Amino acid sequence: MAHTAGQVIRCKAAVAWEAGKPLSIEEVEVAPPQAKEVRLKILFTALCHTDVYFWEAKGQMPLFPRIFGHEAGGIVESVGKGVTDLKPGDHVLPVFTGECGECEHCKTEESNMCNLLRINTERGSMLSDGKTRFSINGKPIYHFVGTSTFSEYTVVHAGCVAKINPAVPLDKVCVLSCGVSTGLGATLNVAKPKKGQSVAIFGLGAVGLAAAEGARLSGASRIIGVDLNPNRFEEAKNFGVTEFVNPKDHSKPVQEVISEMTNGGVGRSVECTGSIQAMISAFECVHDGWGVAVLVGVPNKDDAFKTHPMNILNERTLKGTFFGNYKPRTDIPGVVEKYMNKELELEKFITHSVPFSEINKAFEYMLQGESLRCIIRMEG
Amino acid sequence: MAHTAGQVIRCKAAVAWEAGKPLSIEEVEVAPPQAKEVRLKILFTALCHTDVYFWEAKGQMPLFPRIFGHEAGGIVESVGKGVTDLKPGDHVLPVFTGECGECEHCKTEESNMCNLLRINTERGSMLSDGKTRFSINGKPIYHFVGTSTFSEYTVVHAGCVAKINPAVPLDKVCVLSCGVSTGLGATLNVAKPKKGQSVAIFGLGAVGLAAAEGARLSGASRIIGVDLNPNRFEEAKNFGVTEFVNPKDHSKPVQEVISEMTNGGVGRSVECTGSIQAMISAFECVHDGWGVAVLVGVPNKDDAFKTHPMNILNERTLKGTFFGNYKPRTDIPGVVEKYMNKELELEKFITHSVPFSEINKAFEYMLQGESLRCIIRMEG
Repeated sequence: MAHTAGQVIRCKAAVAWEAGKPLSIEEVEVAPPQAKEVRLKILFTALCHTDVYFWEAKGQMPLFPRIFGHEAGGIVESVGKGVTDLKPGDHVLPVFTGECGECEHCKTEESNMCNLLRINTERGSMLSDGKTRFSINGKPIYHFVGTSTFSEYTVVHAGCVAKINPAVPLDKVCVLSCGVSTGLGATLNVAKPKKGQSVAIFGLGAVGLAAAEGARLSGASRIIGVDLNPNRFEEAKNFGVTEFVNPKDHSKPVQEVISEMTNGGVGRSVECTGSIQAMISAFECVHDGWGVAVLVGVPNKDDAFKTHPMNILNERTLKGTFFGNYKPRTDIPGVVEKYMNKELELEKFITHSVPFSEINKAFEYMLQGESLRCIIRMEG
Repeated sequence: MAHTAGQVIRCKAAVAWEAGKPLSIEEVEVAPPQAKEVRLKILFTALCHTDVYFWEAKGQMPLFPRIFGHEAGGIVESVGKGVTDLKPGDHVLPVFTGECGECEHCKTEESNMCNLLRINTERGSMLSDGKTRFSINGKPIYHFVGTSTFSEYTVVHAGCVAKINPAVPLDKVCVLSCGVSTGLGATLNVAKPKKGQSVAIFGLGAVGLAAAEGARLSGASRIIGVDLNPNRFEEAKNFGVTEFVNPKDHSKPVQEVISEMTNGGVGRSVECTGSIQAMISAFECVHDGWGVAVLVGVPNKDDAFKTHPMNILNERTLKGTFFGNYKPRTDIPGVVEKYMNKELELEKFITHSVPFSEINKAFEYMLQGESLRCIIRMEG
């Protein structure tokens, strides 16, 4: 692929011109990577709720035209100056957050919230020069969370790229670049259930089911799924969920229902909806003395988490996590190996697959609640 | 002491007849211990805020006449049926919470909130038969948190007694039976600062200063003391506090002040006041990514802990602790040894000492904010 290095590449990308309008496949120009950047050829990408949320742009400043997409797998096409740990041909997962390796967050084992490359949903351009690498006839097209994987080629900061085993099928592990790692890590790295403990999972979408998969891998005795949609339970069984609670079926708060089911509360809970009421329930449903609640879902701007302080003092723990506490470059290659070792099952997350030309179908599947993950085949 | 076993003992006790009225030294009858109980000869006791709080009875159901006191050291006088791990002559610290050894809390390493013997401030009698062991001319006198150490003799559940090294001076380690262990354990067992991390301590009374002592033992780089009373800072320096913040000196919230002082927040915080605003500040002043806030102080009934959920999601941890997460029987003997090894300094907590006949002076010292701990010498 060396002949394209340093050149502008013309390729197809799915451009969102306006909030909520179907994406349009366009020919775009993709500039070469600048210092500390890499240009990737995307082979497979998937659709995540976060893409849909910012595409709908109901809750934030709209930024259009924009190329969405952040769950993907691809191959390095070329690298910019100063990039020493990636080379053309490397198999990679781009990630919406990064690891500069030099800030205080990167230097401690306790955090993955890199100061330099932490997710920024409002930024539509590259960090180094504030410009976009995408354009159509000279008109800039905005980036999304530094990844913009709904394009045959994209430019990404090298700190946002996990280099993985080239033997791994990218059409499967691409889902590890966001949702599945987020849920899995929330359980494995943060909630850390002990073998035999009970775990409650709030929200049975892809992130919640990945959290359940983490609970299954941890040897949880009971995995209680909580969702307002009863259709989710059948599928959730494949992810180890053993019991189902629909808050709509009960007149008392769901935390009380769970507490009664479990003789005082679950050992661990993981909240994957972003609903403030679910966050409070997830905290209050863990057992005193040893219960740990982990928040994953992103709340609204005006929400307030509220609980009686005795719930905290009675030796409960409340934690939040971002991308499952995984450091993208350091840790994601190891998660990929869990799939290769058949420890982690990814196929069950992939419910649909479409060629790039039909990317809008992926949006429809998600909006209709039909899909967990729909893989978009760039060369399909 | 064998001649008193099985007999009623007549001795002196400081009886609180009414809320907020000076205690009165009276001759009381102390019944023999029943099954799983022990009768202790108290040698030294200390006054803790919790005694004063329930003596004032402003926020709870008054229960009088009552014998207060729960920080103490003594010697086993006799044991009831079924007590096998304690014998007359053993040196012990009675504790306001217990360890039955058989419930789910006692069986897990993660909790010290024994189901059977957990603190109960509303109960004024013994667990086994609902009766008091104290009386005056047949009129029952209520117990307090199962200890009632403001008496030359008291009866305690055997699960609420830590057996300690008999070589240890009881006039020093008696302070480990409540406040000092609570603060020390909050830092050492729950906040667990890493060497070189910064720690903020909210409230510089005995519990907060014990939390600071824990931070000093952990090798904290900076220990920031927060208190509304600037007179506390000079004393706090002896406990390793390096900087002082008085919220009254600032127009912005104290969490913002601390965040600015520490480039984004402290590594750990420990809240020892019970003020809901201090709890919220203690949580919001820890650094994102790795900060851990630990709540120790007991809130009011109607308080609500409230924060924006993004403060949690940005990888902060909120925990509560009770008695520093120490299991009374299992762990307190080891804390006593820390004093014997000169690792832990207890003398600096003991600012006053009075004979039993002057116990009301201990209340005055505390109410005037003059004392950290006042030791009451039972035979003085």
